[in-house]
Amino acid sequence: MPENTTIAAIATGPGGALALIRVSGPEAIAVTDRVFWHPGGKRLADQPGFSIAYGDIRDGTRTVDDVLVSVFRAPRSYTGDDMAEISCHGSPYIQQEILRLLLCKGAVAAAPGEFTLRAFLHGKMGLLQAEAVADVIASDSRASHALAANQMRGGYSEEFRALRGRLIEVASLVELELDFGEEEVEFADRSQLLLLIDAIGEKIDSLKSSFALGNVIKNGVPVAIVGPPNVGKSTLLNALLKENRALVSDIAGTTRDLIEEEITLGGIRFRFIDTAGIRTTDDTLESMGIERTLQRMEQAAIVLLLTDIADDPAVLPVRIESLNLSTGQSLAIVLNKSDLLSEDELTARTEEWQRVWAETSFFALSAKSGQGLPQLSDYLCAAIRDERIERGDVIVSNVRHHEALIRASESLQHARAALTSALSGDLLSEDLRGVIHALDLITGDITTDDILSSIFSKFCIGK
Amino acid sequence: MPENTTIAAIATGPGGALALIRVSGPEAIAVTDRVFWHPGGKRLADQPGFSIAYGDIRDGTRTVDDVLVSVFRAPRSYTGDDMAEISCHGSPYIQQEILRLLLCKGAVAAAPGEFTLRAFLHGKMGLLQAEAVADVIASDSRASHALAANQMRGGYSEEFRALRGRLIEVASLVELELDFGEEEVEFADRSQLLLLIDAIGEKIDSLKSSFALGNVIKNGVPVAIVGPPNVGKSTLLNALLKENRALVSDIAGTTRDLIEEEITLGGIRFRFIDTAGIRTTDDTLESMGIERTLQRMEQAAIVLLLTDIADDPAVLPVRIESLNLSTGQSLAIVLNKSDLLSEDELTARTEEWQRVWAETSFFALSAKSGQGLPQLSDYLCAAIRDERIERGDVIVSNVRHHEALIRASESLQHARAALTSALSGDLLSEDLRGVIHALDLITGDITTDDILSSIFSKFCIGK
Repeated sequence: MPENTTIAAIATGPGGALALIRVSGPEAIAVTDRVFWHPGGKRLADQPGFSIAYGDIRDGTRTVDDVLVSVFRAPRSYTGDDMAEISCHGSPYIQQEILRLLLCKGAVAAAPGEFTLRAFLHGKMGLLQAEAVADVIASDSRASHALAANQMRGGYSEEFRALRGRLIEVASLVELELDFGEEEVEFADRSQLLLLIDAIGEKIDSLKSSFALGNVIKNGVPVAIVGPPNVGKSTLLNALLKENRALVSDIAGTTRDLIEEEITLGGIRFRFIDTAGIRTTDDTLESMGIERTLQRMEQAAIVLLLTDIADDPAVLPVRIESLNLSTGQSLAIVLNKSDLLSEDELTARTEEWQRVWAETSFFALSAKSGQGLPQLSDYLCAAIRDERIERGDVIVSNVRHHEALIRASESLQHARAALTSALSGDLLSEDLRGVIHALDLITGDITTDDILSSIFSKFCIGK
Repeated sequence: MPENTTIAAIATGPGGALALIRVSGPEAIAVTDRVFWHPGGKRLADQPGFSIAYGDIRDGTRTVDDVLVSVFRAPRSYTGDDMAEISCHGSPYIQQEILRLLLCKGAVAAAPGEFTLRAFLHGKMGLLQAEAVADVIASDSRASHALAANQMRGGYSEEFRALRGRLIEVASLVELELDFGEEEVEFADRSQLLLLIDAIGEKIDSLKSSFALGNVIKNGVPVAIVGPPNVGKSTLLNALLKENRALVSDIAGTTRDLIEEEITLGGIRFRFIDTAGIRTTDDTLESMGIERTLQRMEQAAIVLLLTDIADDPAVLPVRIESLNLSTGQSLAIVLNKSDLLSEDELTARTEEWQRVWAETSFFALSAKSGQGLPQLSDYLCAAIRDERIERGDVIVSNVRHHEALIRASESLQHARAALTSALSGDLLSEDLRGVIHALDLITGDITTDDILSSIFSKFCIGK
C-alpha cells in the first residue's frame, strides 16, 4: 500500500438519508476540487482546515448532488494527511457516482482500514489504538464498547509499556553481567531477579487469563437453554427477546452470524444458543441433532436447564449429569410454567426441587406470562459480573494479543528455568528478549507487513 | 409537529465505519454543547457556522466517543435553524448512546422527514423540491436520479409556475367580465379563451401522460420473461444479472420488495418479473400459478418471449396469442440455445422464425454462453428510450402529482364545456379556479397538514 497516493472510500453504511465519502492523501483537496463546484467560485484549496464548504459535485456540467465538504489540513486530520469529507444524499447511485468521479480525477479506492493504517504510519496513533478502532466500530454493547474504547484511548498501551519497562530493566541487568562475563562478576542478584521475573509472570498470566472474559464481552456471552422437548425453551427465548431487546439490536448491518439470538442485558451482550431438546432416542437424525446440541453446549458460559415445574424433581440429577458440564460453566435450573400455580404452591414446589439439588440457582418463572423473568435477567448479568470490569482493569479481548501473551509467558518460563538451573546468562538473556519481542509485537513497537495487513484487512472500508 | 423544538436523529445507514447524527432547532448547539467536551475547553456556542470542532461526547465523565462536530448557524443551514452534525464511529452502541444523551439533554427524536419539513416551513425550499429529496435519496439509477434531481433543483417547479401563470391570466379575463356582468360587457374574446384553454389542456395532458414513463423510471421498468418450462428463463435472468449487475445494486438497504431481480442497464433500472412456465394443465395449483403469471405480465412494459431455437416456428402465433398483450407492451422473441448451432445455421434458423412472425424483434442468443446477450441489453435500453428524457423534459413520477393533474385536467374539461356551451361566467370561473387549486396543491402554494404529513411520513428518519 503506497503511502503517497490519495485514497477515497464511502465511510457510512447503506440505506441512510446521508452518506460520507472520505478522501485522504497529498492530493485529497486538489482531487475533490476537480469535482466540486461552488456557486461563488470558491476553491477548496483556499479553505482552511476544520471548515466546511457547500456546493455541487459535478461531472462536467452535470450536477450529481449538492454536498457539504469538510476540509482538514495535514497534520491536523484523522490520517495526518490532507483530507476532504463529502457529505452527500444517501442515494446508492449518488454515492457510487461521486466515488467514481473521485477515482477518475486521481484518487484510488481505499483498502479496508487504509485510513487508520495511514494514521498509524503517520504516528497519529499507536498500533494498539489503531487496532481498537475496528473494535470500537463493531461494539454493540456498553461492555464491549468500554473495552474497545479503553484500548483506543491508550489505557491498554500504558499497561504493556509498563510491563515492557520492567522487563528491559531485568534484561539489562543480565546483559550487563554478560558484558563482564570473563571477569565472573555477578551484578544481578539472582534471587532478586527471580522475584522480578515472577512478578512479571504474574502480570502476564493475569492479562492472558483475562482473555476468557474479554472474548465473551467482545463476542457476547454464550448461554445455552437446554431441557426436554416442549418444556418452553423457545417461549423463554422469545420472552427474553421481547422484554429486553435493546434499541441497538434493531440496527441491522453488523456482519455477525445471526443463527443465534442476541440480547443485551445490563450493558452486556448475551448470545442465546438454540438447542434441540435432549432425550434418548433411536432415531439417527435426532441423535445427530442432540450431539450437535451437546457440542454447542460445551461452548456455553452459562447453561439454563429448563424444566416443567410440575415434573417430578427426582429427574433432576439424571438430567444434570447428562449435561456433562465443565467447571467453568455456570448452571441455573429454570422451573417454567409457574403461572399454573398459586403463590404458596410455587414456594412449596420450588423448595421441593431445591431439596433434590441444592448446589445451584433455581428460578421459578412463567415464560408465557413473563412472571419471574426480571430475576433471571439479573442472574445472567450477575453471573458475568467481574471485579476486573468494575475496576476498569485492562482486559485482553484480541486473539492476536492473547497468542502473543502465550508466547511471552512461555519465554518467561524458559527464562525462569534458565535462572533457577543456573544456566548461562546468554540463554537467560535470549529468553528475556523473547518476552520483550512478544510484547513489542502487541504494542506495534515491532511491526511487519504481515502483521499490519492481517490487522487492517479485518477493518471495514472507509475507516 | 411543533417547530420550536430541537430535533435529533441518526442520518446515516447502519453498518458503516462512520455515522452522522443531526441536531436542528433553536437549542441545537446548546444541547450538543451539553454532551461535548473539547480538550482545549472550547464551546460549540463560540464556533462560527460552517466550522468543525474535534472533541469527545461525554456522559458525565465517561467518554462515549471522540467525534467531529460541524456547526451551522441559522439561517445558513439545511433546515434554516441552528444545526450541529456529529460525525462519530459507526458502532450501533455509540450511535444509540449519543442519540440517547442528546434526547436526555433537551432534544426530541425527529420524525421521518422532519429536517426537510422544517426546511420547507422555513422557506429554504419549495414543496416540490422538498418532496424530491426523498426521491433523490432513493434514486438508484442514472435515470431515476436525473428525474429526482431535476425536481429537487427546481426545474419542475418552474414548469408548474409557468402553467399557473397562464391559467391566472385566463381566469382574470373571465372574472373581469363577471365584475361587469350587469353591463353585459364581454372583455374576453371567447374563441381566444378557447385557444388558451386548449393550449393549457395540452400541457396538462402531456404532463399527465409523462407519468407512465416517470413511474417506470422511478420504480424500474417491469420486464417479464415468459415461455414454456425448461426453455432457459432462469438461466437468461442469471446471465443478465451476472453480466450487468451494477455496482450500486451491491448496496443493500433499500426498502424495495426484492421478490423481483433488478438490473441497471444504460442507467435505467429494470425489474425482471419471475414467471412460472405457461402451459395448459389440469393441475389446479399449477393453473393458479399460471394465472398469477398472466396477471403480473399485464404490468410488464416489455415482454420477452423465450423460445428454444430448435422448436418448430409454427408454435409462435399460438404462444403470442396466449400472452394476450395490450397495446402499450413491447414484445421481443428471444431464441435461446444459439450455442448449439453454427453461425450459418443460426442465420437460417432466425430467418425461418421471422417468416412466421415478422411483426416483432427477434434475438438469437445463448443464455448459457452469453452469446447475443449485449444485443438484448441494447434492445431493452432502446425500448424505454424516450425523447422526453433526452430533452430533459419535466417528467411526472409522483403519484400525488399525477392525481392532482387528473383533477386539473377534469376541471379544465368542465371549463371548456362551460365556454363552448356559453354557460354563465360564474361556472367557467369556478372551473378555472379548480384547475389552479389542483396545481397549487402540487406546488405547495396550498398545503394542508394532511398533505404535509402524507408527504413527509414517507421520508426516512434523519432527513
